[in-house]
Amino acid sequence: MKLKDIPVVAMDAPISAAPLSGHASVLLREIAERVRHWIETGETATIDLLAMPLNATDLDWLRERLGTGEIRITLDADGESTLNETNCPGVWWVMHHNPNGGVMSAFIEVAPVPELVKAHRDDVQGGLERLEWLITDLG
Amino acid sequence: MKLKDIPVVAMDAPISAAPLSGHASVLLREIAERVRHWIETGETATIDLLAMPLNATDLDWLRERLGTGEIRITLDADGESTLNETNCPGVWWVMHHNPNGGVMSAFIEVAPVPELVKAHRDDVQGGLERLEWLITDLG
Repeated sequence: MKLKDIPVVAMDAPISAAPLSGHASVLLREIAERVRHWIETGETATIDLLAMPLNATDLDWLRERLGTGEIRITLDADGESTLNETNCPGVWWVMHHNPNGGVMSAFIEVAPVPELVKAHRDDVQGGLERLEWLITDLG
Repeated sequence: MKLKDIPVVAMDAPISAAPLSGHASVLLREIAERVRHWIETGETATIDLLAMPLNATDLDWLRERLGTGEIRITLDADGESTLNETNCPGVWWVMHHNPNGGVMSAFIEVAPVPELVKAHRDDVQGGLERLEWLITDLG
């Protein structure tokens, strides 16, 4: 099967959607390579989707190929971020939006869990102080 | 385990809610202690809320004290699980539901990220095989 033979169904296609550019299939191979590298070395990876010459059709095609996993993560901090597992465990589709809902950045993250989800030490220390304050307040 | 043995907790409070039992404040101190221990030793912890003599008022009180964090995680696998960050980073409120929406289990997890969210090696390997199949299919 050639690239042009792949049936692509645009769900809300504009009247003249751009055709697949060919970069999407290159990226799919790159993702597989990063997952293989991670399994072999433990080294995780982040791919900046907006830094690549992908059009909307490419992104739709890629998203459909990767599929939807069981885990959906939402982070609300000055705009919503969605960090969703694809149907390939350890491959996450990460999007950051501004407060108006516009896409600020989009990444594929290859890792056990997206980095942003992990609680960081300084924040945990701050949370402990909050807990101690709550406990003091109990009298 | 039989179906009838699974503890299902009705979340809608009865008309006359029970008063705070005193166990909730003990648990709040316990959570703080686990966070402190984690910071000092790196050892994470899971507290089974349904194994403790907490009533619905206790749970509401605790949930309100811990507050709501920025991160919400949903996992859909034979019933929905919610793994939500509290306002104390690294303290997660984890609930597992059966396919009918009943609460199957409830935990406080003290960790950088809930264990269930991490992609496991076997699953990642399976996902890589899926990616390789997709790439072969590209021709």
